Amino acid sequence: MPDLAVNYEDIAAAAGRIAGIANRTPVMTSRTVNERTGAEVFFKCENFQRAGAFKFRGACNATRRLTPEQRQRGVLTYSSGNHAQALALACKLVETPLTIVMPDDAPAVKVAASRGYGAEVILYDPDQTKREQLGSKLAEERGLSLIPPYDHPHIVAGAGTCAKEFIEEVGPLDLLLVCCGGGGLLSGCAISTKHLAPGCRVIGVEPDGGDDGVRSFKTRELQRVANPQTIADGAKTPSLGRINFPIILEHVDDMVSVSDAQIVSAMRVLWERMKLVVEPTGALATAALLEGVVPAPRGGRIGVVLSGGNVDLARVGELFAGA
Amino acid sequence: MPDLAVNYEDIAAAAGRIAGIANRTPVMTSRTVNERTGAEVFFKCENFQRAGAFKFRGACNATRRLTPEQRQRGVLTYSSGNHAQALALACKLVETPLTIVMPDDAPAVKVAASRGYGAEVILYDPDQTKREQLGSKLAEERGLSLIPPYDHPHIVAGAGTCAKEFIEEVGPLDLLLVCCGGGGLLSGCAISTKHLAPGCRVIGVEPDGGDDGVRSFKTRELQRVANPQTIADGAKTPSLGRINFPIILEHVDDMVSVSDAQIVSAMRVLWERMKLVVEPTGALATAALLEGVVPAPRGGRIGVVLSGGNVDLARVGELFAGA
Repeated sequence: MPDLAVNYEDIAAAAGRIAGIANRTPVMTSRTVNERTGAEVFFKCENFQRAGAFKFRGACNATRRLTPEQRQRGVLTYSSGNHAQALALACKLVETPLTIVMPDDAPAVKVAASRGYGAEVILYDPDQTKREQLGSKLAEERGLSLIPPYDHPHIVAGAGTCAKEFIEEVGPLDLLLVCCGGGGLLSGCAISTKHLAPGCRVIGVEPDGGDDGVRSFKTRELQRVANPQTIADGAKTPSLGRINFPIILEHVDDMVSVSDAQIVSAMRVLWERMKLVVEPTGALATAALLEGVVPAPRGGRIGVVLSGGNVDLARVGELFAGA
Repeated sequence: MPDLAVNYEDIAAAAGRIAGIANRTPVMTSRTVNERTGAEVFFKCENFQRAGAFKFRGACNATRRLTPEQRQRGVLTYSSGNHAQALALACKLVETPLTIVMPDDAPAVKVAASRGYGAEVILYDPDQTKREQLGSKLAEERGLSLIPPYDHPHIVAGAGTCAKEFIEEVGPLDLLLVCCGGGGLLSGCAISTKHLAPGCRVIGVEPDGGDDGVRSFKTRELQRVANPQTIADGAKTPSLGRINFPIILEHVDDMVSVSDAQIVSAMRVLWERMKLVVEPTGALATAALLEGVVPAPRGGRIGVVLSGGNVDLARVGELFAGA
């Protein structure tokens, strides 16, 4: 086995660190889904996680691992999505200032929201600078601890607590479906799953419009995607993370992708039948199952991670109008 | 105490009858709501009930009380909403045919949906006929068992299992808020609550546009409302039921009403913050609490019933657009 950045002991330690701070999210089931798939399907509801997505697990673990001195200096990240929101909450809970680096063409509402939860926002020109480079440079200059959205062992260890809780609650699974952007959730959950339920197949699900992970997995070489177009905005990452990719190669059994129409169709089942507000990225794994992209093992026990529920309600109408 | 149509023993018996068939719905909490109200608030999630609303409790109880001969002859109701959907499922589970009487100006989609789940639909001209009269007449002519939406002891007993489960799970409450249309859920829950937590205040919540229940409660005489206008379509009932009204007078402490804007505001918190799909009627009780119509007892333990989650996703955009 290659030397991976995270192992199961790191995840078990993270679970202890975030216990009582992160939510132990509920598992839901649906007679409709079971009938439709001919299997027993369990949904791990990270849309009910604090700050509305699994991201809080990693953010909480990472901030709790900072030394008192690091906490006093502050944290820096580059993300305007669920990671930023989760990290803002995690930083607030340990009284650490947060700086967020964002492209200067980011929607004003996102900049305002980031400032709204107390973060300092630094804008940059994405044509001139890469966010990773700027982030590292600023972190070093200012003595801030960089906590990126997925490419970090503490983030992966935190994310892995999701599958750990899931399997501890429902017992061994035959198949686990997890969405994939940069691979933080997928890599962490794959480590937990292969440790707790070695016979369980783990499959990562990406949007068609950002299928770099699928291509990386098939070719075993890190592939990139430029400016991915998909409604699954949480999976618009340019590539899998450097530490995430080897973990995925080692512990994940397959990677697939689904279309935006398949995502909306899955969201309709989650919202209409299961009464769960789940964002497009959060419905990727459900789409792979319900649309038959991944065949359900007959009578099998299937776990599906619903990764988040942060949607703009004003845009929900147009999302479902076409379906 | 007046001679009421339902008592706690009926509810306890109903709970036994529907156990393992109706869902034992989860209770959810929200740090945001607790901070905002300065209280400890518990939400009983009947949106996760089978057929998407508390109505299945009464429908299940009523159909299970039919004799084998009655089951063979069939059931009749007049309702095109959640009660019809719940009753259709309950009838299917005991293999009983269902006939639904609907006004001939009902939306085609509702007629089609009713036929879709196997019910025979009989249309009538609402200018010529009252649904209760036609329902009774048809039931008698055809030997069908009439199961109306709220004005029936088996329906009330079934609905009362909601508050019974709720208090058994979370312990005694200081205040329970329940939405009110015809008063089936409110009357049943009030009986359970006063039996299990006698010190708990029970308050019914109606939409401003259909506040006949509030007026009936204040005047102690049954008031009616003609053609109520509100987004809370489950509460568009012309008056409280005849058996529900005396129970409400006996066991309910107060009745209030909320505006459509307050309902949408509450729905926004439920959807955006709590990730729960709840229909407008299902958000009535939440609106009374979050909009301050009912003051939260400082540090108190408050129960809120989310009665259902059946919404038309295509209309969600317009609902939230104005808020």
